[in-house]
Amino acid sequence: MPCPPWRYFANMQPPAYDAVADLAAIRSGDRKALARAITRVENELDGYRNLLHALTAETQVPVTGFTGPPGAGKSTLINALVRHLRADWKTVAVIAVDPTSPFNYGSLLGDRLRMHEHFNDEHVFIRSLATRGSLGGLSEKVLEIVDVMRCAAFDHIIVETVGVGQSEVEIAGLADTTVVVFVPEAGDEIQTLKSGIMEIADVFVVNKADREGAETFANNLRKLAAHPRSDGWEVPVVKTTANADIGVGEVLEAIGHHRRSGALNAKRPYLLAEKAYRLIRRDRMRGITKAALKEALENELKDPRFNLYRFADQWVK
Amino acid sequence: MPCPPWRYFANMQPPAYDAVADLAAIRSGDRKALARAITRVENELDGYRNLLHALTAETQVPVTGFTGPPGAGKSTLINALVRHLRADWKTVAVIAVDPTSPFNYGSLLGDRLRMHEHFNDEHVFIRSLATRGSLGGLSEKVLEIVDVMRCAAFDHIIVETVGVGQSEVEIAGLADTTVVVFVPEAGDEIQTLKSGIMEIADVFVVNKADREGAETFANNLRKLAAHPRSDGWEVPVVKTTANADIGVGEVLEAIGHHRRSGALNAKRPYLLAEKAYRLIRRDRMRGITKAALKEALENELKDPRFNLYRFADQWVK
Repeated sequence: MPCPPWRYFANMQPPAYDAVADLAAIRSGDRKALARAITRVENELDGYRNLLHALTAETQVPVTGFTGPPGAGKSTLINALVRHLRADWKTVAVIAVDPTSPFNYGSLLGDRLRMHEHFNDEHVFIRSLATRGSLGGLSEKVLEIVDVMRCAAFDHIIVETVGVGQSEVEIAGLADTTVVVFVPEAGDEIQTLKSGIMEIADVFVVNKADREGAETFANNLRKLAAHPRSDGWEVPVVKTTANADIGVGEVLEAIGHHRRSGALNAKRPYLLAEKAYRLIRRDRMRGITKAALKEALENELKDPRFNLYRFADQWVK
Repeated sequence: MPCPPWRYFANMQPPAYDAVADLAAIRSGDRKALARAITRVENELDGYRNLLHALTAETQVPVTGFTGPPGAGKSTLINALVRHLRADWKTVAVIAVDPTSPFNYGSLLGDRLRMHEHFNDEHVFIRSLATRGSLGGLSEKVLEIVDVMRCAAFDHIIVETVGVGQSEVEIAGLADTTVVVFVPEAGDEIQTLKSGIMEIADVFVVNKADREGAETFANNLRKLAAHPRSDGWEVPVVKTTANADIGVGEVLEAIGHHRRSGALNAKRPYLLAEKAYRLIRRDRMRGITKAALKEALENELKDPRFNLYRFADQWVK
């Protein structure tokens, strides 16, 4: 008896993933293809490596990173920036990286609620990523996701990270232009500025500039930023009141100036080395999790001669 | 002609390093041996692995980590704590981890000047470490150095880190008791608290408590800390004015309570897994630096078909 047709159907393989065709669709503006590609990369689905290996420098949309302490009003500022860009008929992608507890790995802020104003606009592409596993830093996959989005010919790609410290350094390794947002009360943090953020920030924003002390704070920042950096870029200080839509255009101008300056080209090899380093580290640590180590440790801890360094050496390739 | 005696001497090997004897000297209170051992570990001198592999759980002095934003007065508080401990004839070790710019790797603060008050006291062992290579985080070797110091039978080991964000998480992976120091102005940072510091902090200190808003801020913290954690520990909130020596004894008491509680034992496997993870990662990334990657990249970037993911794959074992 011949095999019924549904048998042939059931035995059929799904068509092999064609990364080049997928990228062509993404380039032509197919947002559903983009969303699928991001999911593919985020979850390491079939073909995700092909996709990454097929990325070329053809269309490289510059990425703007926003960072700063919680409560500085980054989301409000980005919301206002998107409104300005949309009024100018620009397409925008926003990637929000949520903060997570280092111990419960759960997401704190509501998923995409912060950007609700633009949620029904098809020219605003919003994606929110949890920080998984990297202890308060950026999501492990944000690097690849941003690189896929660069191919989708947006006019602007915005990455928002919440938090200070390590994330700032991480975002500087990812974004072509890094905007650091402060509020006037951040006076005590000026110490931090001197020690690292000066090299990271391409644009300073003093948000909530209607508050007391804003002018003094902005002037102090300007003094710190007065000397041009080794790449020739003088870091501008912009005052905004994002929730009243004041100063938002100036932030866009400052980002545009930085994009057109030579500083971005000078930065590129550093950015790529930083990204390569993180990719290599992740691959070399593949399969090693703190949870697995804890399980392995629990047996060994019963031994009174337990030694952490001998234990760790067993896991070194 | 017989070989002259100096020839025998010149051919002589230095005596092999005896890690067990060295550790015995350190345990007996030989501070010079301790200082040499730290240098050995910090610079990976001959025999440093033997030393680490010889560490046992025999004497395990609990470590107290202090963290918090710059300007919170951590150094002043630690200074006052050391004064109290010395009045009680306790021995103390202080490890200060200096902030460094992520790009110039230079040390910002003066080396040990902050602790000058105790510098001539032989029962106070002070060591300051630069943050080398780990981009704003703790010094790469602080983990090993602290483990060596644990053998030296101090009554207290204090690790001070400057900065917020990632360092807090890192210190929580290193310290048995983590003290997070704030100033009343840190109001906006309460958002951060909810997202991660609650799980990290074992003791909250509101320093500069003579300033306006201290009581409100402390009460807000108390509300956040009101529910006991999964390990049963209720995080105390202590108000201090460290430079006037107010509240310092209460901080010591809170640290003592935490040490004697069951929370510390519950934490131990997590701490060790965190440490093991960092040791393994460092060893697996040995020899791979961002500078080397940047050099390798500069040639490849000339190729218009350059692809970061194919580049990174070459470096994955």
